[in-house]
Amino acid sequence: MISKKMEGMVANSSAIRAMFEEGTRMAKLYGAENVYDFSLGNPNVAAPEAVKTAILELVNEEDSLALHGYTNSNAGYEDVRQNVADSLNARFDTAFSAKNITMTVGAAGGLNVILKTLLNPGEEVIVFAPYFGEYRSYVDNYDGVLVEISPNTVDFQPKLDEFEQKITAKTKAVIVNTPNNPTGVVYSEETIKKMASIMEEKQKEFGTDIFLISDEPYRELAYDGIEVPYLTKYYANTIVGYSYSKSLSLPGERIGYLVIPDEVSDSEMVISAANVANRILGFVNAPTLQQKVIAKCLNEKTDISYYDRNREMLFNGLTECGFECIKPQGAFYLFVKSPIEDEKAFCAAAKKYHILIVPGSSFGCPGYVRIAYCVAYETIVNSLPKFRELMAEYQK
Amino acid sequence: MISKKMEGMVANSSAIRAMFEEGTRMAKLYGAENVYDFSLGNPNVAAPEAVKTAILELVNEEDSLALHGYTNSNAGYEDVRQNVADSLNARFDTAFSAKNITMTVGAAGGLNVILKTLLNPGEEVIVFAPYFGEYRSYVDNYDGVLVEISPNTVDFQPKLDEFEQKITAKTKAVIVNTPNNPTGVVYSEETIKKMASIMEEKQKEFGTDIFLISDEPYRELAYDGIEVPYLTKYYANTIVGYSYSKSLSLPGERIGYLVIPDEVSDSEMVISAANVANRILGFVNAPTLQQKVIAKCLNEKTDISYYDRNREMLFNGLTECGFECIKPQGAFYLFVKSPIEDEKAFCAAAKKYHILIVPGSSFGCPGYVRIAYCVAYETIVNSLPKFRELMAEYQK
Repeated sequence: MISKKMEGMVANSSAIRAMFEEGTRMAKLYGAENVYDFSLGNPNVAAPEAVKTAILELVNEEDSLALHGYTNSNAGYEDVRQNVADSLNARFDTAFSAKNITMTVGAAGGLNVILKTLLNPGEEVIVFAPYFGEYRSYVDNYDGVLVEISPNTVDFQPKLDEFEQKITAKTKAVIVNTPNNPTGVVYSEETIKKMASIMEEKQKEFGTDIFLISDEPYRELAYDGIEVPYLTKYYANTIVGYSYSKSLSLPGERIGYLVIPDEVSDSEMVISAANVANRILGFVNAPTLQQKVIAKCLNEKTDISYYDRNREMLFNGLTECGFECIKPQGAFYLFVKSPIEDEKAFCAAAKKYHILIVPGSSFGCPGYVRIAYCVAYETIVNSLPKFRELMAEYQK
Repeated sequence: MISKKMEGMVANSSAIRAMFEEGTRMAKLYGAENVYDFSLGNPNVAAPEAVKTAILELVNEEDSLALHGYTNSNAGYEDVRQNVADSLNARFDTAFSAKNITMTVGAAGGLNVILKTLLNPGEEVIVFAPYFGEYRSYVDNYDGVLVEISPNTVDFQPKLDEFEQKITAKTKAVIVNTPNNPTGVVYSEETIKKMASIMEEKQKEFGTDIFLISDEPYRELAYDGIEVPYLTKYYANTIVGYSYSKSLSLPGERIGYLVIPDEVSDSEMVISAANVANRILGFVNAPTLQQKVIAKCLNEKTDISYYDRNREMLFNGLTECGFECIKPQGAFYLFVKSPIEDEKAFCAAAKKYHILIVPGSSFGCPGYVRIAYCVAYETIVNSLPKFRELMAEYQK
């Protein structure tokens, strides 16, 4: 009945849906406080008070038609886009203007828009394992081919040798995600420079354009003052996908943007096409009230100290139990080595202790598990004795 | 640089973009009050006051994480979906529950979700000319083939003989849009019954499922008490795409829903797949605040008397000038016969009088033009002498 492609997608999705249902079932059975659900990247720090203030002001003061109507351009309100550009320019010493910004339905919407814009069937998109599993679907939506670079489990920085070898004449884009989901790793400036130099060489070798797509929902979630390089400054064909889902705790509101700099090859055409893609994919425009909200909150940040405290507690607690894990520099995930090769079996064992975690296979990196620490601090504290019991099973 | 498909799309889109720009240019040059821009279907009746009240209540009273977080299901909040189902059941004597409702990013998002769910490459989707031009792009997004039924310019009801002939073993879906953009026609119950009977016969003949997709952004905009049949009651394989863009004047907020009734073949699978499609196309979920807003405004309606007054004034005014047009029963468009065969030339001539209207070719129906009357009443009053002068050019 449904399309053949979707049959496969539905089958693959059932594992995650099953986890949802399991969490709900367990919470009912044992009480929510006795279930340690680390499965989801749903922020648990409230949106900044400024978001509420902005919504109230806008609704009380703005004309309904201007606030809730279609935007003149599918790229969004001109003034909002200029404000976003100005804010980026001030922070990163870039030179964007409104035309370089396309407001999108979150980063997921933005990635779909830019992949629709760029990909011909059969063209390749490179990702570095472990990677956000949805990239596979996004690329498949436009009949692209996902090419994986195998994980470097020493420090989870990208394997640049393998990257260089796997770029072909068909490579249209490379997606990077730093700070990374699921590892929390931030790519160093050195890494970015090497990556850029490889891509420039390959562009020359093949006479092609290879676009670097930087998926940045976790940009503002970086700890210990670590700097997250702004990629458009290192490589001309860079397109940024940003989201306010984590930085302002607005994941349900679906608000983000694409940056398509003037330095991108044929940038005017790419910008025009992204505008059309935004429309014909059915987004039409990013939700208008939220466009105006984020324009009023460009200097706001989520309470990163909350996540940082969770990070310290969970990282220290788990390593004390004997788990192996690199300390994340950003985002709100720990990517932990499974004590047994079959990490799905390990996730199943964890459920006995009411601990819900996601197998690394979902991120192209079996043998590991992702633990999302965007949860209550108490959940972490209370889960640690359970993690200890769980680990003890494998230390006998 | 960009994909081959998008190259064509960008070229085709430039006509509408040019009209936008022309309107802005003319407004600057001649003053907005001297430009009669009938090009866009952007509501000009403010959202009901209840929308504002709902937003203020929600933001003041609800927990930020619950209000702005991801929804547990990509289909949206369970309680909102149940409320929508209850409201439909009360109005149309249907028997939907939350599981039959998938909240979407407007009707455009909903149509993309259901087409992604259903279409295999090469499968056919039938539309009745004149039709909303975006359908062509939506179907093409999933490599479907759009099959047009030629327009019946007598009364703009669908040509059912041609419809019957053009259904093949490859027909996967039929899109209807009633009240119709661009004609304002409402399909009668008799028409719907005949259409359903043809589709049932053809399903049997080919041993296939043929889905009737009812695109209903204009459902609430029906005049003179005319009834708009609820299609799920006439044909089992019916899927409804609804939007609050026009009914609550919220087009920029991107909020609507799909109804996938239990009567649809393999409905559980179709519902699951639509859920997955909502996620992987990058919508993820319909904007959360607006989901809760519409749940509080299910009994609200836009001020249809405003559009009705415009309809009467424009229809009477234009027919008095000698234009030929059927009186629309719904929506906010007049579909007027061009006094010359080449309606694009006619639209160009109209521009000399600062009148902006859309060629029927954009709707698969050359020789006609669409005039959107969701404008200020004064715009219509002031435009009529200009329309008279314009028409006089062809009456010499």
